[in-house]
Amino acid sequence: MVQADDFSFSGLHLPGNTSNPVGSKVTLINVAKIPGLNTLGVSLARIDYAPWGINPPHYHPRASEIFTVIKGSLEVGFVTSNPENRFITKILHQGDVFVFPAGLIHFQRNLGTGHAFAISGLSSQNPGIVTIANAVFGSTPEISSDVLVKAFQVDKNVINYLQKKF
Amino acid sequence: MVQADDFSFSGLHLPGNTSNPVGSKVTLINVAKIPGLNTLGVSLARIDYAPWGINPPHYHPRASEIFTVIKGSLEVGFVTSNPENRFITKILHQGDVFVFPAGLIHFQRNLGTGHAFAISGLSSQNPGIVTIANAVFGSTPEISSDVLVKAFQVDKNVINYLQKKF
Amino acid sequence: MVQADDFSFSGLHLPGNTSNPVGSKVTLINVAKIPGLNTLGVSLARIDYAPWGINPPHYHPRASEIFTVIKGSLEVGFVTSNPENRFITKILHQGDVFVFPAGLIHFQRNLGTGHAFAISGLSSQNPGIVTIANAVFGSTPEISSDVLVKAFQVDKNVINYLQKKF
Amino acid sequence: MVQADDFSFSGLHLPGNTSNPVGSKVTLINVAKIPGLNTLGVSLARIDYAPWGINPPHYHPRASEIFTVIKGSLEVGFVTSNPENRFITKILHQGDVFVFPAGLIHFQRNLGTGHAFAISGLSSQNPGIVTIANAVFGSTPEISSDVLVKAFQVDKNVINYLQKKF
Amino acid sequence: MVQADDFSFSGLHLPGNTSNPVGSKVTLINVAKIPGLNTLGVSLARIDYAPWGINPPHYHPRASEIFTVIKGSLEVGFVTSNPENRFITKILHQGDVFVFPAGLIHFQRNLGTGHAFAISGLSSQNPGIVTIANAVFGSTPEISSDVLVKAFQVDKNVINYLQKKF
Amino acid sequence: MVQADDFSFSGLHLPGNTSNPVGSKVTLINVAKIPGLNTLGVSLARIDYAPWGINPPHYHPRASEIFTVIKGSLEVGFVTSNPENRFITKILHQGDVFVFPAGLIHFQRNLGTGHAFAISGLSSQNPGIVTIANAVFGSTPEISSDVLVKAFQVDKNVINYLQKKF
Repeated sequence: MVQADDFSFSGLHLPGNTSNPVGSKVTLINVAKIPGLNTLGVSLARIDYAPWGINPPHYHPRASEIFTVIKGSLEVGFVTSNPENRFITKILHQGDVFVFPAGLIHFQRNLGTGHAFAISGLSSQNPGIVTIANAVFGSTPEISSDVLVKAFQVDKNVINYLQKKF
Repeated sequence: MVQADDFSFSGLHLPGNTSNPVGSKVTLINVAKIPGLNTLGVSLARIDYAPWGINPPHYHPRASEIFTVIKGSLEVGFVTSNPENRFITKILHQGDVFVFPAGLIHFQRNLGTGHAFAISGLSSQNPGIVTIANAVFGSTPEISSDVLVKAFQVDKNVINYLQKKF
Repeated sequence: MVQADDFSFSGLHLPGNTSNPVGSKVTLINVAKIPGLNTLGVSLARIDYAPWGINPPHYHPRASEIFTVIKGSLEVGFVTSNPENRFITKILHQGDVFVFPAGLIHFQRNLGTGHAFAISGLSSQNPGIVTIANAVFGSTPEISSDVLVKAFQVDKNVINYLQKKF
Repeated sequence: MVQADDFSFSGLHLPGNTSNPVGSKVTLINVAKIPGLNTLGVSLARIDYAPWGINPPHYHPRASEIFTVIKGSLEVGFVTSNPENRFITKILHQGDVFVFPAGLIHFQRNLGTGHAFAISGLSSQNPGIVTIANAVFGSTPEISSDVLVKAFQVDKNVINYLQKKF
Repeated sequence: MVQADDFSFSGLHLPGNTSNPVGSKVTLINVAKIPGLNTLGVSLARIDYAPWGINPPHYHPRASEIFTVIKGSLEVGFVTSNPENRFITKILHQGDVFVFPAGLIHFQRNLGTGHAFAISGLSSQNPGIVTIANAVFGSTPEISSDVLVKAFQVDKNVINYLQKKF
Repeated sequence: MVQADDFSFSGLHLPGNTSNPVGSKVTLINVAKIPGLNTLGVSLARIDYAPWGINPPHYHPRASEIFTVIKGSLEVGFVTSNPENRFITKILHQGDVFVFPAGLIHFQRNLGTGHAFAISGLSSQNPGIVTIANAVFGSTPEISSDVLVKAFQVDKNVINYLQKKF
């Protein structure tokens, strides 16, 4: 028999730890954290940014996202699919809302010298996150550098350098 | 051709006006406010509460909701469907998250003497809101009091009183 | 291996027992009664009405309903969502068909001095039923009367009276 | 602005005209007859049967069906898909309910010497009906008899005879 | 933990065995053959045709199909639902693409004196196949010949002949 | 009134032009090329590869893909989402089938010295294609190099070099 605890979670007021190379932290409250979300088609995220931190280019394979700035100023944007690859971007301040359509690559960057944070609603209980740099250069095992050399049209040593980073 | 403005909205940091009988205000950012939400299956809401204000019993015909307290302490709950009609309730503080499953009646009440507010993600670009008291006692035209007398098993003057209120 | 019995049910020609305060009985043939309905997205209901009986204001969290009067005359209606709360109503006679859109509050009332009954198709194998009076005033445990006093703007003794009824 | 008439239809108590070679008539109340059914995912049908009449083998490309006998006794059945092609069948009497899963071929036959009729709920506002004999032998233009000779493994004159019938 | 083998299958370059009365063979790669297709909503088929072979009239209860001729020339077609029963047909050559909408009866016929083959994508991990002749005349147990005599309006001996064939 | 031409397309037997930096060409037959695909949830693609050509890392925001090698040998793979970023890979020969789950980054590489080609079914009439290198380094306008420097943790001149390439 379900209880209130199956529908709740605590601690989203706590800033995520942004001491990492990109200077940001996503705290995603999905069905793995709240079992009662099962079949409900929604989840929530808090994103924290160190000064000049970025939430690097990524996408959600199974969700759209609606995002609002609680504190700070952020540059945000997404890129449309082939062949246009239009970059739709905006500078957001506190209380601004922005939408990242399902499956499109997007990012945010803290434009200020203070900590910033945002809250998002996502259209899946399990949206998934694919961070471009990690998936392409940091997979286990690695993607053959021959593929990446041709895909990004750079020297093998650049690819090898990138693969060591991730 | 879509522009950033089709995907954005401003002003969600501003408290809603809670000077009304229930002492709360829902600001819903749906597809009517952000056209780019069309087909994306998600929306966002800010709910403000005066001291002891309530967001009265209501439901969303087309959405589940995931809710987090940004400021204040709130009593929240939802009621399951027939025949159990179990009331699942919890007291939430800042940073607590709670889920209201699709189509179930739910409410929130500010337990404190200060202003409180919360942010929600909803699983539809157009969730709809049905406030029980308004739909039942405040429709245009009114539902026949004979129906409501029998449904709520009270005297006609109680029903008439309620219908005048809404 | 599935058998015909997994896809069938008997007894829907029998009038439901309407000896109850509202004078009606819903017999819902859903996936709990016919296992073969699983994943099929449809169910069927028979609703019986004593003279002047009502099927009180309720809604289905997961289904639309298409309703036809087999015997008798019924007043029916549903209320649209906020902010309009329009009451769409009609008097139905034998052979009339009416639609209750997904998630909207609706009811029926027998307008005659004889027994009446109707058949409905619903767009889910498990539509759910939320009866307003039972969910709001008859939940287990009860919703705090402070919430209901404010939501319905009546004295606490009216709320207490209602909570004892349900 | 929607009105009650957008959600209603009259006349389903009237028997359909069964003076045709198969001795049955389907009256389908779909979105073409009730505009308010749009997006609601449900429709309703009445099926009338002359004595020994059949609702011939057919299927609904976009709907499951839940069927109940209002008057009479009917033999009903559906056939599962390849490779089993199991025939799941049952004799139904007044008040019996039976389910025809989405997209499977099914039929009903009146087993009695009187008029019979049934009501069905279907899981689409536009279920579609494909009657096997009409689609295969009565299309416009006709399917080449060479195809049908090989498909049904009969002489061309049998196919030509069937094509003239439909 | 998933492995590459959960997402792969071998042997689709091998012609199917068309030594059967209709002179064709469908090799369907669905979730039963590739477990990783689960929830992915897509499958693939190879269809081989002996000279003048047909893939007899059939439909997929849960999928649309997009079809391309790899080798040979084929007559293809589908029939729309009641009441029009329009036969939409075309002769296809190598590299031609054709669409069979979800749930509509369709077939292909090899127009040449050599082996032909085609590849299809289908919009379900488990599309299902209902072959008209097998479902109607070859079910287990058989559909009563009384039903089929009336449905196809032929003598009982024609129906009995057809039932022996399938 | 629909015609056969609304459901067909010609020329998929013709090799795509692979004279480009990655040595591959995707020919996607979606609803823009066949109007009759509308609402049907499926499309088809042919992919051609020059010797050692790659179909570079990309994903489909709205579709899963089932892929079969018609000619040649290909290395294929996809990367799972965060945090595992597992690379699931396999070498495919003629007649091998492989699945790319919805929204995951995948690629193919021709392992041979001759032309290769493959056919895919996709679970949407409009799957969309996001090629990682083009979306990240070749958008219009460009993503700020500050973002990309931090996302990929390389010097600005590497980012500038990449942005000039795409």
